Amino acid sequence: MPQFSSSVNSLRSSEIRDLMSLANKPNMILFSGGMPDNNLFPLNEIDNIFNNLTEKEKQIAMQYGPTSGIPELLGSLKEFLRKKGLPVDTNKLMITTGSLQAINILAKAFIDPEDDIIVENPCFIGAISAFKSYQANIVSIPLTSEGIDLNKLKETLDNAKKKPKFLYITPNFHNPAGTLYTLETKKALIKMLQGQDIPLIEDDAYSDLWYYEEDKGDLTTIKAMNPDDIDICYTGSFSKILGPGLRLGWMLVPEHIYQKCELIKQSFDACSPSFTQMLAHKFVESGAVYDYINNVRTEYRKRAEAMVSALQKHLPDNITFTIPRGGFYIWLHLPEHIDSTEVLKCAIEKGVVFVSGKTFDPHGIINNTLRLSFCNTSIDKINQGIPLVADSIKKYLENSNKK
Amino acid sequence: MPQFSSSVNSLRSSEIRDLMSLANKPNMILFSGGMPDNNLFPLNEIDNIFNNLTEKEKQIAMQYGPTSGIPELLGSLKEFLRKKGLPVDTNKLMITTGSLQAINILAKAFIDPEDDIIVENPCFIGAISAFKSYQANIVSIPLTSEGIDLNKLKETLDNAKKKPKFLYITPNFHNPAGTLYTLETKKALIKMLQGQDIPLIEDDAYSDLWYYEEDKGDLTTIKAMNPDDIDICYTGSFSKILGPGLRLGWMLVPEHIYQKCELIKQSFDACSPSFTQMLAHKFVESGAVYDYINNVRTEYRKRAEAMVSALQKHLPDNITFTIPRGGFYIWLHLPEHIDSTEVLKCAIEKGVVFVSGKTFDPHGIINNTLRLSFCNTSIDKINQGIPLVADSIKKYLENSNKK
Repeated sequence: MPQFSSSVNSLRSSEIRDLMSLANKPNMILFSGGMPDNNLFPLNEIDNIFNNLTEKEKQIAMQYGPTSGIPELLGSLKEFLRKKGLPVDTNKLMITTGSLQAINILAKAFIDPEDDIIVENPCFIGAISAFKSYQANIVSIPLTSEGIDLNKLKETLDNAKKKPKFLYITPNFHNPAGTLYTLETKKALIKMLQGQDIPLIEDDAYSDLWYYEEDKGDLTTIKAMNPDDIDICYTGSFSKILGPGLRLGWMLVPEHIYQKCELIKQSFDACSPSFTQMLAHKFVESGAVYDYINNVRTEYRKRAEAMVSALQKHLPDNITFTIPRGGFYIWLHLPEHIDSTEVLKCAIEKGVVFVSGKTFDPHGIINNTLRLSFCNTSIDKINQGIPLVADSIKKYLENSNKK
Repeated sequence: MPQFSSSVNSLRSSEIRDLMSLANKPNMILFSGGMPDNNLFPLNEIDNIFNNLTEKEKQIAMQYGPTSGIPELLGSLKEFLRKKGLPVDTNKLMITTGSLQAINILAKAFIDPEDDIIVENPCFIGAISAFKSYQANIVSIPLTSEGIDLNKLKETLDNAKKKPKFLYITPNFHNPAGTLYTLETKKALIKMLQGQDIPLIEDDAYSDLWYYEEDKGDLTTIKAMNPDDIDICYTGSFSKILGPGLRLGWMLVPEHIYQKCELIKQSFDACSPSFTQMLAHKFVESGAVYDYINNVRTEYRKRAEAMVSALQKHLPDNITFTIPRGGFYIWLHLPEHIDSTEVLKCAIEKGVVFVSGKTFDPHGIINNTLRLSFCNTSIDKINQGIPLVADSIKKYLENSNKK
């Protein structure tokens, strides 16, 4: 048996994967996945784009590109990000193989084994596994309905024995919690971090998927506020606004951080796929991306509202959740004694699947929570599936009352 | 200024990149790149493949796939590898984002900082940077015309204070040296490694690009020999047999190593691009890959032979090189006192560019060597460029004689 590295020995297969394989039955209603609906992909636009590529463009698509991305996409994405108010002229943009790669590269740039880093609890599972793979000591701060718990964060920073290497957050339509930080929370967070020399990784995979015009104020990204004295590493993704199968994301970061990230990216995979970069470039450059985002935003809002109605109708009173204002997810808070993995087992028997909460706890403990995705399921299925979820919770509550 | 990790601080930008930017002039003759010729990509086949995809296949192409690869490509690639004699039924196959990612994942699976690993000298630059990024202590063994220097390797293994984590080699048409290991070297290497518990990483990006039928015996991969008592991690790539812009490679490895690699891959980029996997699948499944390999093999052989003729005609007598029997490269050995970086500067002035030898020395020292690529340049350009390379060497020799 060969001797593996200590870093890979710190990685564990998630329990959720084993459970999910149980759920791999026909007609299972899926509230588990964080992927867009297959039926919503812009297949006609991709057909048109591909069939209008010139021979030269197809050659670029087949060839290695620069580590930072093909110039075509860097150019059009820059304009897309500029429209979101991002400081594209004073930062460097790099195309990555999905935004998870951007997060992983930043993790590698900063983390030495045993370094402290700070995340929200709950937290995006991909980021947790990237941070663990570099043997970070993960410190987590609870999320409130307004964003990260600023009091707890301040306490943690004040009492830190060593400076955390970075703070990683998802302010807009959090995965899994669905939370949209208020503008006040964002501003207070900036104030707290200024001059601390702790980089902020702002994961912004979902901000285009807002449902309500009145939220646009809160949606301003922290990177777009462009505060002095904080290194903000902004990451984004084409997965939710075009298709995850293209494996394209990006980071927009200060020059001195970019230089390190480019060296890491070069050693990871040399460059991201030119083929899908060319398609994404045309999708952005032509403006098709804006129409597409409008369409899916409307569709996801309908699904979210349908799921909220069904939950309000069927859930017992002691179950709470935040009504989503964008993104893909609803996060349920169950009474403290409930183990959502047990609820999940019962739900799978009834023909519906979701993700239990501890999957998103960096410490793998808190489990009286669960994530419901509405992105990948029709309204009909939502209306069929939510009563089954509610029944599973009720059944668990009855059984636990009997004991 | 934030504090970076010690691993990223060990990465340096290659000197060659600065020189290459000097070479970015119109009409420069490029013997520097390791990429296929833009004019050789199978654009018509890709058009046909794309336009014959069903709606369902396009949806798969746009969606996340399993971490190990989409089942379609895993199936067709398995048959492709089976034809090469590889033990596909007793090992696990994983699609990676280029074969560099496969090498990087294996590096992460095995290397702790300061661990010894063994490579050939010269060595593929991507592998060097991956190994350095995990802070390996790289031990290098010279390449002879028959493969790795077995005496030196034995000496190194016998005298090792700690067991090296792995041996990384490119037995077939080495980058940069062009070397094809003899079958005897491969067999002797197997014997030396058996029972040592040192995994072998066999990088096989080039073996399909053989030029001469009579070499087919030597071309058998070590993985295909399937020896007992060695963990062989075999890596390959679509970059040379379809297009690097697809960013697709693979690893074929024993189950116990695969399990670790899958966790790493999941934290790196979740999965490789489904979009290009679907195209590659159709290219392999239809058999188009075999015709394409035949075509490019013939073309690269012509270019190789043209470059060999031109070198034999123009080079001074004291410059030696191995005549390539496949792959992309010719590796020149200059007299010991020659600094090929100085030769390169002169060559760039004359309008031709190559890569100086020390780029491929893991220790960045040996520089009386240089790599000429013939993959990306027409025969006309080869005939124009080689005299300029020869002139640059002669000029250097004259100047150094004067001193």
